[in-house]
Amino acid sequence: MKAALSGPEIERLVQALGKLPGLGPRSARRAALALIKKRETLLDPLSTALREAAAAIKVCSTCGHIDTTDPCGLCTDPRRDDHLLCVVEDVGDVWALERAGVYRGRYHVLGGTLSALDGRGPDALNIASLIDRMTGKTGVEVVLALSATVEGQATAHYITERLGAGVNVTRLGHGVPIGGELGYLDEGTLAAAFKSRRPL
Amino acid sequence: MKAALSGPEIERLVQALGKLPGLGPRSARRAALALIKKRETLLDPLSTALREAAAAIKVCSTCGHIDTTDPCGLCTDPRRDDHLLCVVEDVGDVWALERAGVYRGRYHVLGGTLSALDGRGPDALNIASLIDRMTGKTGVEVVLALSATVEGQATAHYITERLGAGVNVTRLGHGVPIGGELGYLDEGTLAAAFKSRRPL
Repeated sequence: MKAALSGPEIERLVQALGKLPGLGPRSARRAALALIKKRETLLDPLSTALREAAAAIKVCSTCGHIDTTDPCGLCTDPRRDDHLLCVVEDVGDVWALERAGVYRGRYHVLGGTLSALDGRGPDALNIASLIDRMTGKTGVEVVLALSATVEGQATAHYITERLGAGVNVTRLGHGVPIGGELGYLDEGTLAAAFKSRRPL
Repeated sequence: MKAALSGPEIERLVQALGKLPGLGPRSARRAALALIKKRETLLDPLSTALREAAAAIKVCSTCGHIDTTDPCGLCTDPRRDDHLLCVVEDVGDVWALERAGVYRGRYHVLGGTLSALDGRGPDALNIASLIDRMTGKTGVEVVLALSATVEGQATAHYITERLGAGVNVTRLGHGVPIGGELGYLDEGTLAAAFKSRRPL
């Protein structure tokens, strides 16, 4: 019955949209309908944006971030602090930190965490390039902004060892998230919050 | 700061995605990131699907439905019942009814409802083509599957008048929606449900 409802091109559009995070089958259908109905204002601009983004995106050979230039805009920005290097798992983490606007140093994107289960060893991550980047540098603080998970912490531990004793390595603080209610927090977070308590 | 974070092509992609129904600014960013990171499996297929859909979509000159052929697959399907004609506001309503799988007749898509506020008169809707379609036809039931709103009902009333006394016009039943809890229903729906009550 679906074949009779709409042509294969429309079905393929619904399916391609349904693979995006945040769009289920029903909302993919709604999005496809909106695109089809508003061709000039929705479909054509999105089509152009996708084509242009596909042609323009590059992975920064310095930090692993995705941008339209290599080195990326964050690596070349002269206003950023060269004495801070924030190590993150993912490009999305860079976006999140930049949205928060609390950090003005450089970045290094690992591309994931070490994972024995998924068979991801150090060679699958941008760790060698991080070591290269730090070789011979002094006075740089490396902030490990990795997930507070077993895998994130194993990765942090491994990187700290590889960087050696001469490098100043820090990690993000743990505690109660802003807006978080104590009743919903796990014991690990509560313990961390108690340990890092401060005078009012 | 946004300009430094990612190139204009990526920003334009985020903006184009953010205009889709169901995607806010945050989820548009997440979708853009997924597209960029999974170019072969996400970005390229969506780009192709959009281009092909844009090239293929046609508005059916018989019923106003959107498909990749004109007349559309629903108008040409020989298995559908020519004695039933369901009048809907929108292409999305056709999709919803077809998903429900309860109707096997033909369709007519108005493209909206009459609206004094939005200045939408009969000429802005596919009403003339509906009258044309019904001229000289006998034994066809016209099911008005329009919104149970003031505008939907005004449209239904207008169409009934235009079709004339010789045409068998029906509307969808009103009542408690399946899964609906009485406590959340408005008085109008409850009144309609009482009026249309049936023996168990």
